[in-house]
Amino acid sequence: MKQIMQIALEEAQKAFKLDEVPVGAVIIDKEGNIVAKAHNLVERHKDATAHAEIIAIRKALAKTKDKYLSDFDIYVTLEPCPMCAATISLLRFRRLYFGAYDVKSGGVENGARIFNQPSCHHVPEIYGGIAESKSAKLIKDFFAQKREKF
Amino acid sequence: MKQIMQIALEEAQKAFKLDEVPVGAVIIDKEGNIVAKAHNLVERHKDATAHAEIIAIRKALAKTKDKYLSDFDIYVTLEPCPMCAATISLLRFRRLYFGAYDVKSGGVENGARIFNQPSCHHVPEIYGGIAESKSAKLIKDFFAQKREKF
Repeated sequence: MKQIMQIALEEAQKAFKLDEVPVGAVIIDKEGNIVAKAHNLVERHKDATAHAEIIAIRKALAKTKDKYLSDFDIYVTLEPCPMCAATISLLRFRRLYFGAYDVKSGGVENGARIFNQPSCHHVPEIYGGIAESKSAKLIKDFFAQKREKF
Repeated sequence: MKQIMQIALEEAQKAFKLDEVPVGAVIIDKEGNIVAKAHNLVERHKDATAHAEIIAIRKALAKTKDKYLSDFDIYVTLEPCPMCAATISLLRFRRLYFGAYDVKSGGVENGARIFNQPSCHHVPEIYGGIAESKSAKLIKDFFAQKREKF
């Protein structure tokens, strides 16, 4: 479990180096094989929805050719936003593991709390706070560096 | 306004003919020009996230090459789900017009009520219930026909 989150953190580092908000995501199958990994590319893609989760999900869907990702688990270094959380629900992911909690923009334990809605049709098993401090440090360092620049 | 929703309803009809849940979406620019239109293609695309809004948005982003769609309005025949509503917020749409309300899966006036969350960073102007009965009838007819088949 930690090893997969480590790979997600390496993805987040790649985003950091590209001056993108450092978030990484990895999708694995039931056997633990990595089927997709990605990092946030909002600036590069000129697309405010190009979150790590969404890019990894698009890659996984292209591979599986199934309309759901029921047999898959997703690891994300930061608590998914409402868009990503609702996407994870629609695709019926088996498990969601995430790193740091995101009070400002998260949609799992914060904000819209997507999976807590009675009308949420699929709730994965959810494990938050995995490698939380490492993930939070990346985000904190990123924004500290941003502030120094301006 | 009604004219654009009529075009969105024609998109929904296309979905109906393809045996897809009949939902259509149209995106217009400030001058009222249509920049993208689409219908639900979840089954055809084998992708549970291939909602009308998402497909129209991907087309619009490809055209505009901007990371936000701030100068655009989106028309949808059905109340957007939480994923689509959160996507509309992230992209900073100017206005959202929608048709029928969706008690079961909507995320604007129902469920996660995405735009009502204090942590929702952008709320468009929202107009619900446009051509509501036509849109609702399409959905109702679709599921009635589905039930007959089984």
